[in-house]
Amino acid sequence: MRIDIITVLPELLKSPFEASILKRAIEKGIVEIHFHNLRDYTDKTYNQVDDYQFGGGAGMVLMIEPIDKCITSLKTQREYDEVIYMTPDGITLNQKIANNLSIKGNLIILCGHYKGVDQRVRDAFITKEISIGDYVLSGGELGAAVLCDTIIRLIPGVLNNETSALTDTFQDNLLAPPVYTRPAEYKGMKVPEVLLSGNFPKIEKWREDEAIKRTEKLRPDLLNK
Amino acid sequence: MRIDIITVLPELLKSPFEASILKRAIEKGIVEIHFHNLRDYTDKTYNQVDDYQFGGGAGMVLMIEPIDKCITSLKTQREYDEVIYMTPDGITLNQKIANNLSIKGNLIILCGHYKGVDQRVRDAFITKEISIGDYVLSGGELGAAVLCDTIIRLIPGVLNNETSALTDTFQDNLLAPPVYTRPAEYKGMKVPEVLLSGNFPKIEKWREDEAIKRTEKLRPDLLNK
Repeated sequence: MRIDIITVLPELLKSPFEASILKRAIEKGIVEIHFHNLRDYTDKTYNQVDDYQFGGGAGMVLMIEPIDKCITSLKTQREYDEVIYMTPDGITLNQKIANNLSIKGNLIILCGHYKGVDQRVRDAFITKEISIGDYVLSGGELGAAVLCDTIIRLIPGVLNNETSALTDTFQDNLLAPPVYTRPAEYKGMKVPEVLLSGNFPKIEKWREDEAIKRTEKLRPDLLNK
Repeated sequence: MRIDIITVLPELLKSPFEASILKRAIEKGIVEIHFHNLRDYTDKTYNQVDDYQFGGGAGMVLMIEPIDKCITSLKTQREYDEVIYMTPDGITLNQKIANNLSIKGNLIILCGHYKGVDQRVRDAFITKEISIGDYVLSGGELGAAVLCDTIIRLIPGVLNNETSALTDTFQDNLLAPPVYTRPAEYKGMKVPEVLLSGNFPKIEKWREDEAIKRTEKLRPDLLNK
């Protein structure tokens, strides 16, 4: 998989891709990530890429021309499955969308910033608009990092133990059951005895019950999906 | 505001706090961010902070002892309004939660990693469990960065122009209207004429109509909230 991320702040995005699972996926050659600084695609003075809104109002808007140049240049080099725009009014990311994107070949992710991008960019170039949740961020960069993390960890070979991703919350519309590790007792707080029993069918049953109980209590909406 | 972030991967978190709005908020002295590496709070060999799950199964679990030590040490130094755990089965972050947290004084954010933290940590120390969305991430670090960004940009003085945050998507349960910037015509694509009219009451009306139209089309659920 290859992901091209277009942003005005590539430096903001650096560290999440240089640590942990994303770093390992890149080192293993399973995924290639390329950052493109939008300022490299403008011929305006001071590398300007944004301008005031037509009609007035607070907040700058990213201009269409540098975005057009960047996307067009990428598209002449290879085909892309999706050109994604990170925006709070996109479709809300969930595990199903992540699963679907994890089997794609080439993706472009465009990060909004300030007040967003010129609407004509969305009309002309974007194939999918994704939001990571119902809240506003300073830009699309953290959203892009979140999207990449959810997608990339699902690609076979990225996680050391593939069964780990399959038992995560949301893969079966259930929250995960509680987990415990050593010590068995800490300042009077004990691990549930069943987990120490060595009786694996019983442990499985307990985990399933706890997962359903937790989902009913915290996220009953998931059970109806 | 002071935010203490507890993590096994402080290096993953670095760049989002060293750029753009978070950087400026820190430089202006409006917010202090402190990273705490969980490995500094263990006396185990190789700075071990995780161990296998009781009951078997894939994925490591963060142990209670180093987390206890870290949180307890912070609490002896000052009072905290919330001890937040980032987890996919927490309450889903939205703009209202961000608004509420933005007026707090001191926050601790604990990042899960691997299969999560020992359940006794959640029972004994955590006051609020927050998810940034219905998808699984490699760890709580990106979630913590997202949470910090949504909160910090709302603190007065952080954004240069405070009216900008007030007109963002979600602040009034409406998606934002489309925005446009120069040029007025690009490769045949024109900006809506009303925005060039200079008739500000008419522009306001158009934006309101477009916001409602877009919300009805893309997120009708927001209108009933």
